[in-house]
Amino acid sequence: MKKLINDATAVVNDSLVGFELAHSDIVRVDHELQVVYRLDAPRQGKVGVISGGGSGHEPLHGGFVGYGMLDAACAGAVFTSPVPDQILAATKGVDGGAGVLHIVKNYTGDIMNFEMAAEIANAETGVAVETVVVDDDVAVQDSLYTAGRRGVGLTVLLEKIVGAAAESGADLASLVALAHRVNGAGRSMGMALTSCTPPEKGSPIFELGDDEMEVGIGIHGEPGRERRPVAPAKEVAAMLVEPILADLDFRGADVIAFVNGMGGSPLIELYLMYAEVAKILEASGVRVARSLVGPYITSLEMAGCSVTLLKADDEMIKLWDAPVQTAGLRWGR
Amino acid sequence: MKKLINDATAVVNDSLVGFELAHSDIVRVDHELQVVYRLDAPRQGKVGVISGGGSGHEPLHGGFVGYGMLDAACAGAVFTSPVPDQILAATKGVDGGAGVLHIVKNYTGDIMNFEMAAEIANAETGVAVETVVVDDDVAVQDSLYTAGRRGVGLTVLLEKIVGAAAESGADLASLVALAHRVNGAGRSMGMALTSCTPPEKGSPIFELGDDEMEVGIGIHGEPGRERRPVAPAKEVAAMLVEPILADLDFRGADVIAFVNGMGGSPLIELYLMYAEVAKILEASGVRVARSLVGPYITSLEMAGCSVTLLKADDEMIKLWDAPVQTAGLRWGR
Repeated sequence: MKKLINDATAVVNDSLVGFELAHSDIVRVDHELQVVYRLDAPRQGKVGVISGGGSGHEPLHGGFVGYGMLDAACAGAVFTSPVPDQILAATKGVDGGAGVLHIVKNYTGDIMNFEMAAEIANAETGVAVETVVVDDDVAVQDSLYTAGRRGVGLTVLLEKIVGAAAESGADLASLVALAHRVNGAGRSMGMALTSCTPPEKGSPIFELGDDEMEVGIGIHGEPGRERRPVAPAKEVAAMLVEPILADLDFRGADVIAFVNGMGGSPLIELYLMYAEVAKILEASGVRVARSLVGPYITSLEMAGCSVTLLKADDEMIKLWDAPVQTAGLRWGR
Repeated sequence: MKKLINDATAVVNDSLVGFELAHSDIVRVDHELQVVYRLDAPRQGKVGVISGGGSGHEPLHGGFVGYGMLDAACAGAVFTSPVPDQILAATKGVDGGAGVLHIVKNYTGDIMNFEMAAEIANAETGVAVETVVVDDDVAVQDSLYTAGRRGVGLTVLLEKIVGAAAESGADLASLVALAHRVNGAGRSMGMALTSCTPPEKGSPIFELGDDEMEVGIGIHGEPGRERRPVAPAKEVAAMLVEPILADLDFRGADVIAFVNGMGGSPLIELYLMYAEVAKILEASGVRVARSLVGPYITSLEMAGCSVTLLKADDEMIKLWDAPVQTAGLRWGR
């Protein structure tokens, strides 16, 4: 295992130390509980928006804490759900009297732990907590860690859009409705050229031959739809985009198109993939209104990419364009 | 070779297609010459600032074209200098009557081709062209592709700072003086955990054993100072920072500290490395005024990192903080 780490059991904590130092103008970190907070949390009168999940997907979620996006993020161990104590602390820590929204990727452990924390928080302080589950992955119906579809790339877009609405003063009920609309209008599909090695495991989570790729992969190396010989980018793009278009009718729609890197694929390849995705969308009568290209929801050093399409109405586009100031996404301010 | 590409001979061109589509609000691309321009270039009365170099280092340089940074960037083939025709076109294309500054990393081919283009441009149009060479790498004195030190991570900081000064209306002579000051005050050192494979070569540029790393690596896989067993991050940080501190006296200075990813190392490791670098700097009496952590000058999918320190005076800090709107760096606007 070749990694820039010290102690395999302390990677998340050690990394959060550097993250806080590098972004002390945006966040503070509770190192005991491994929760990243906006510097000015809680904000009175604003709905607190929090997320979290296993580490190893950086910049998700801590990199999306800041103005116009999340108020806090809970960092679990690598590829492991955060525990209820973390989520409970974050929920209380962002409660500004207007309620708290939990954005949860659809994995069994995450769902369970966020739910438990929501119940305890409400019982202890009376805070209103609502939850939206993201389940955008068209690759598989159920998986090793999931009942139903997995939550993947759409999480980034949803956190941006819902975070912008919260920043503009939307109430909890409106945010829940918006989040459900976004989740219903977005779909994703991913692939891997290589595996990845969680530090504490010390060995790859799956094996791939030198000429093989895995299509329909999850962000924890869960098995995908099929293992195939490595193919040219234009064929890979079709393998990712066509199942998305088959699952939801995007014809004539304006979309936010997101080509995500899994961590080990360089930008030169991700932009090339985006060109191929854009060609297919144009040929399919789908208009790209906005785009995002880069490694935003990753699987450690895995090489590969995912495609997310969101059918975006005018409100979503406006919220997407709104200012954001986080470690991972920053514009307009 | 596992890559998200179509034709190994067309990777740069195919990638620029996606880059332009993804950032059409910031850049336009001359696809025949592979030059990335700011949408509003040339700007009358503003010094045109251009750079360029081999591809495979993305987001450098095309990702730094835009408001507050570069006016154009020339994309050579992977790990190959751009040719004079590209640089000539870029020089003419950003000439707004106030002269043009060439920012050139210190590689023999780059120096020669930028110089030739500068001479032709001046002869043909009378435009005043000045050149600043970046040579910040303390690892080796000469190398396979270099007389003197290589130009590496400092290039990113210099393009930001000098670009901001150009945006604010500085004249050509002032920009040259500033660029020399920045180059004189910055040092870098890098290392690799893995090699990388240029698409047209189809095989790794060097071999590293499963338990080896290369310290003092260049951004084209040029041999470094030494090959060593993989070490903990804190030791790696010391191997990178100590030669920098030994080369230039940073004690008591405010620095911009930059931990750069080589392309294949995920953010979770880069932030961890930054924490280790920050510890050494604190113990050495060096104050971090600003920081940058992420993959900004890469070597395709190479795993590893580099450290750059810039002794920054108040003017440099102010220019660093100034608004920038490029694909690769964006803040404050």
